[in-house]
Amino acid sequence: MKKICVVVNSRANYGRIKSFLTAVEEHPELQLQLIVGASALLYRFGSVVDIIKKDGFDPVSVVYSIVEGENPSTMAKSTGLGILELATQFENLKPDVVLTVADRFETLSTAVASSYMNIPLAHTQGGELTGSIDESVRHAITKLAHIHFPATDKAGELLQQMGEHPDNIHIAGCPAIDLAEQSTKKTCTNLFEKYGGTGENLDWDKPFLVVLQHPVTTEYQEAARQTKATLEAIRRTGMQTAWFWPNVDAGSDAVSKTLRVFIGKNKNAPFHFYRNFTPEDYVHLINRCQCIVGNSSSGIREGSFLGTPCVNVGTRQNQRERGENVIDVGHEAGAIYAAVTSQIEHGKYVSSNLYGDGKAGEKMADILSKHHVDIRKTFYIA
Amino acid sequence: MKKICVVVNSRANYGRIKSFLTAVEEHPELQLQLIVGASALLYRFGSVVDIIKKDGFDPVSVVYSIVEGENPSTMAKSTGLGILELATQFENLKPDVVLTVADRFETLSTAVASSYMNIPLAHTQGGELTGSIDESVRHAITKLAHIHFPATDKAGELLQQMGEHPDNIHIAGCPAIDLAEQSTKKTCTNLFEKYGGTGENLDWDKPFLVVLQHPVTTEYQEAARQTKATLEAIRRTGMQTAWFWPNVDAGSDAVSKTLRVFIGKNKNAPFHFYRNFTPEDYVHLINRCQCIVGNSSSGIREGSFLGTPCVNVGTRQNQRERGENVIDVGHEAGAIYAAVTSQIEHGKYVSSNLYGDGKAGEKMADILSKHHVDIRKTFYIA
Amino acid sequence: MKKICVVVNSRANYGRIKSFLTAVEEHPELQLQLIVGASALLYRFGSVVDIIKKDGFDPVSVVYSIVEGENPSTMAKSTGLGILELATQFENLKPDVVLTVADRFETLSTAVASSYMNIPLAHTQGGELTGSIDESVRHAITKLAHIHFPATDKAGELLQQMGEHPDNIHIAGCPAIDLAEQSTKKTCTNLFEKYGGTGENLDWDKPFLVVLQHPVTTEYQEAARQTKATLEAIRRTGMQTAWFWPNVDAGSDAVSKTLRVFIGKNKNAPFHFYRNFTPEDYVHLINRCQCIVGNSSSGIREGSFLGTPCVNVGTRQNQRERGENVIDVGHEAGAIYAAVTSQIEHGKYVSSNLYGDGKAGEKMADILSKHHVDIRKTFYIA
Amino acid sequence: MKKICVVVNSRANYGRIKSFLTAVEEHPELQLQLIVGASALLYRFGSVVDIIKKDGFDPVSVVYSIVEGENPSTMAKSTGLGILELATQFENLKPDVVLTVADRFETLSTAVASSYMNIPLAHTQGGELTGSIDESVRHAITKLAHIHFPATDKAGELLQQMGEHPDNIHIAGCPAIDLAEQSTKKTCTNLFEKYGGTGENLDWDKPFLVVLQHPVTTEYQEAARQTKATLEAIRRTGMQTAWFWPNVDAGSDAVSKTLRVFIGKNKNAPFHFYRNFTPEDYVHLINRCQCIVGNSSSGIREGSFLGTPCVNVGTRQNQRERGENVIDVGHEAGAIYAAVTSQIEHGKYVSSNLYGDGKAGEKMADILSKHHVDIRKTFYIA
Repeated sequence: MKKICVVVNSRANYGRIKSFLTAVEEHPELQLQLIVGASALLYRFGSVVDIIKKDGFDPVSVVYSIVEGENPSTMAKSTGLGILELATQFENLKPDVVLTVADRFETLSTAVASSYMNIPLAHTQGGELTGSIDESVRHAITKLAHIHFPATDKAGELLQQMGEHPDNIHIAGCPAIDLAEQSTKKTCTNLFEKYGGTGENLDWDKPFLVVLQHPVTTEYQEAARQTKATLEAIRRTGMQTAWFWPNVDAGSDAVSKTLRVFIGKNKNAPFHFYRNFTPEDYVHLINRCQCIVGNSSSGIREGSFLGTPCVNVGTRQNQRERGENVIDVGHEAGAIYAAVTSQIEHGKYVSSNLYGDGKAGEKMADILSKHHVDIRKTFYIA
Repeated sequence: MKKICVVVNSRANYGRIKSFLTAVEEHPELQLQLIVGASALLYRFGSVVDIIKKDGFDPVSVVYSIVEGENPSTMAKSTGLGILELATQFENLKPDVVLTVADRFETLSTAVASSYMNIPLAHTQGGELTGSIDESVRHAITKLAHIHFPATDKAGELLQQMGEHPDNIHIAGCPAIDLAEQSTKKTCTNLFEKYGGTGENLDWDKPFLVVLQHPVTTEYQEAARQTKATLEAIRRTGMQTAWFWPNVDAGSDAVSKTLRVFIGKNKNAPFHFYRNFTPEDYVHLINRCQCIVGNSSSGIREGSFLGTPCVNVGTRQNQRERGENVIDVGHEAGAIYAAVTSQIEHGKYVSSNLYGDGKAGEKMADILSKHHVDIRKTFYIA
Repeated sequence: MKKICVVVNSRANYGRIKSFLTAVEEHPELQLQLIVGASALLYRFGSVVDIIKKDGFDPVSVVYSIVEGENPSTMAKSTGLGILELATQFENLKPDVVLTVADRFETLSTAVASSYMNIPLAHTQGGELTGSIDESVRHAITKLAHIHFPATDKAGELLQQMGEHPDNIHIAGCPAIDLAEQSTKKTCTNLFEKYGGTGENLDWDKPFLVVLQHPVTTEYQEAARQTKATLEAIRRTGMQTAWFWPNVDAGSDAVSKTLRVFIGKNKNAPFHFYRNFTPEDYVHLINRCQCIVGNSSSGIREGSFLGTPCVNVGTRQNQRERGENVIDVGHEAGAIYAAVTSQIEHGKYVSSNLYGDGKAGEKMADILSKHHVDIRKTFYIA
Repeated sequence: MKKICVVVNSRANYGRIKSFLTAVEEHPELQLQLIVGASALLYRFGSVVDIIKKDGFDPVSVVYSIVEGENPSTMAKSTGLGILELATQFENLKPDVVLTVADRFETLSTAVASSYMNIPLAHTQGGELTGSIDESVRHAITKLAHIHFPATDKAGELLQQMGEHPDNIHIAGCPAIDLAEQSTKKTCTNLFEKYGGTGENLDWDKPFLVVLQHPVTTEYQEAARQTKATLEAIRRTGMQTAWFWPNVDAGSDAVSKTLRVFIGKNKNAPFHFYRNFTPEDYVHLINRCQCIVGNSSSGIREGSFLGTPCVNVGTRQNQRERGENVIDVGHEAGAIYAAVTSQIEHGKYVSSNLYGDGKAGEKMADILSKHHVDIRKTFYIA
């Protein structure tokens, strides 16, 4: 049995890797070692660990590693603490492969710990261009990783240009699309009744918007102003809105504070605030909504497959590959309002396979079960 | 005044950046913030901090960050601890630029801390190919860094291929060559008298070899066998030899133990063991020796400028660019012996400017004083 | 100049040591090295560091050391991280004496770091009995400390019984009383106008209550239920109430959540929620209020000097020495309600010097300036 | 099954708790969770973990937590890192009781982590007086611990005086004596042949001395001078000597260096240097030797039971309770020499039960299986 260790560290991580976790558990030659850590353990970010357990996964360990402060220096420190902790976990679990998801600081912790420990490192979402520190970190992880599961063809080409050997690049699509694909086949109960959250009651049978706007870490002092522009635009639409609290990042305190002040002053705005949905429910939600607004990659990624109209605000997703469903705007209330109105009018787009066809998790598990990963890397020059 | 923070973390770091430290201190628009940490503080590695202070530098702080154990998991943990610590230092020092040297785990700590903290990161030795985890880490740091000071033209090209913008790539040569260049202009006292160390007395006026062989972290369980092959070969030459203890890396305990056992059994072998020389004295030493043997990059790097014959053993420097002065061999005593003999016979090579012309430190300081570094990176596609 | 390093780590710390900080700064033979860390840096706990700076103190460094999670294991981890960080600070600051305040986990970090580093450790509030993990930690710090500043005679006797030498025990009173004493001499502006907070507007000229209820770490799973009992009782009084968010401790998330849910359901309850007041304003507030309710030590400590009626709820202050002004009750809404009503009826108590006469800060500074502290401790047997 | 977690962190820890580990494993109602960490993992300190595994114990995890440097600040940092790591271990292992041994910094890590995590903490060797930072730490741990296993009656009384409840104090004797008791019933092979080490060959059938001298952390800058005095005295006796390398503590680098320089200059002195013996072999060794010299507690502790003559040098064991077998001297070569000579002349002393009768491990396991430990502590006043 090959031991595949996956570290799930955040809300976003989990939905982006869940179908792979299932595929590993079901694979006869693979054994899953699931570590849950960082913001995935925190109440403020929706206690993702509880969702994971409810989904039937049994973590081998939990690892608290977020240094509180939500500013650039605590992001750095959380990275460091994550490495310290994960090294001990890997030392004791002795996995054959470690898989790390995407590009956040907890992801980098996993990558640094396993690569220094001579454990073959698999990485998803490598080669994507997006701007921001996340992109730099994503590429840094690529240079530490031994086997790559980029989501798109273009991303795969970029990995090769950066010196990764084509034999180690496997374009499997993104596991997030697997959940989207499954969700389109199922009916969905009233999610507004299912989840608590705070704010006005929303009507599941009426049109609604979804908003997710994270602080951009290189602009984190702008976070309050940027949040206000979106709040202003959404209020102007008059539509009922499911709004998600931001990620744990430099600036998220400022975003949260801005949202709280807005709630205080606009008690009857038809907004409801959520910490977290299960990945499946989240996909159902953005499949059903009129438009997804903000700077979450889900509008672009899952959105392209689902055909959900998306208004992408600001620089956070700057260079990310996108389908037809996205309109980009800056942090101006007027521009955001106009784009949302136009998207609502347009309605659903045609589904695109840009980010995968819904079989990523299985493909990845299969490749890991067969592929021998060489721990020594050589810079590949075409 | 622009505050330039340099973190010196090891013996090798210091010699490779010293001329830049001097150039920053002498530059009217730059202020040096020197942090000394990791193995540069440890007695076992020659208490480099004492040399630094004797050279007239005044560290703003010292930071202990090596987790003891010298195996893969403690290398990872030392990286994590370094990040935790350096983030606090940067938070309080508020540098305008952080400069990190080369590719070791302490270097990565510096890079991760400063890049997450939105502090422009300068990096030396980027773009060099060498094999081993050091290369992966070097490239990972490149992807986090904002301004690059590669040593060679070829390295500069590789950085561009990896997506770094040519405006941020400045080929200045390696500051290590600055010391080599200066050393060729000065006479040198008897270094065997100057330094303590252990073992047989060496005669400064007779020919001698220099050996430096580090464990290769991806092969660290081979460290003892590899050390034995070199010991065997060198003993066969019968030449007096200045031998340096290895770096703090997974496997260095095994190397040290092998050396101690050899000393125990061969009390009269003309070997003398040293922990550390000042960078200048080290350059004098390898300028004067008949041949430098092992897997230190100094034989290739400073060696090319000095024309010192070098026998490079094993995979650690596999792909490093090299001049005429290097013969490569595997970890077999016979092959090492033959190569050393042949190099002694050949004698000095013609000096090469492959790694610089001796003005790197000044050039780098000058560029940092003038260049505005943009904290936002964009992947460069030619 | 003797360098006195004080680590201020929380809201409570600051008010309990501020008059000493001033006394050190004004003392001709002492130099203050002020480090601000842990929850004193966090927005959630009122950004105490900003108050400190506004008060004219200039911290030599800030140190983020809270591991997020607010459960028993993150309290332990925050202690560990604090030690790691503070050791580096002390290494570089080289203080002659370190002073640590009271009994929380950040206090223990300071104590462990300085005592292992052979730096004489001064400690305030030693020898007090209170129940809870805080008491154990307080006594553990006593056994590490070299010079003791207990607040009361009885506490001083207990220190001696625990083996501390009488020469090292100086009963100076609590510096918190210094602020209380000063506050009684000054008039105070409308604090409800000065501070933001959330909730209903309060009228400064009408009677009001103050509530502060922290989770008890050994009962942290009870935190929600305990908070509800107090909420219920206070609501029943119908009085306007200034309510403070709890400390960062295991269980504080549960307390905060309970408060938020209550606010959501009782939008017109005359409660206003505050994160933090400056220490002086806080003392003014509890001097002016009809009754202080909850489990903060301030009701007992500053309350005894101010004569403010106090209803102390639950076990957190179980064994703390108290004056006439305190009624103790369990976590039952009815009992709390009855006690509050009775205290309001009683009105102000006579001022007591149980916890000091208002000159503690000066006395402590004076003793430190004159007293040679021996780093070697001997168990004292009377 | 009650889960008993024991953290073994050093050479000394292991011998002092081994019989308890065995008793827990053999007890029908107890389950052992053995964590091995800190210096017990390091080659420099004899790789105790290998001995533990050879003895048939199967650690649930290993935890590297020593920050290299061996000075006061790295001792503090190692304590902090230990807490960080152990908190994660306890979080995942969920023990019913944690047991911590004696008084070193790793012991304190265990105590802080478990007490903050509301896990009942058992402690051995509490209440002993010895001078040095170890004593302060021992008492600090006492104030954090919930159940005490002091070795002697006098120690038990001291615990009570410090406020520990007599119901939680169980005088079981020291488990180290269990090994001593067993060793006296077995014959022993030639240990000089069994262990490697470095230096001159020793003859098992001739009289020999054993030396163990650790740096005293509050005097760590004196370590070299103190080591020289002992070296000088022992050389003067002309006797063959088994000498152990010191613990990982501030100053141990200086001790090691002094020993190495001595070996370099005195190649024929009949000294042999050892890193570590198994606990049983160590007890055999000090049972057989003519005299044990230095400042290890084993001369006093196991020595009292075995009747081995002991020369205790310096302040490290200052106040430790001792039997008839000990002569105390300062760090003067002459005094040490005289005392050793006198002890050799005297020969074996009568066995004493001061530190136990050889059944401590079993008694402790039995008590833990029956005793309900209350996590809430109340200061006990007789």
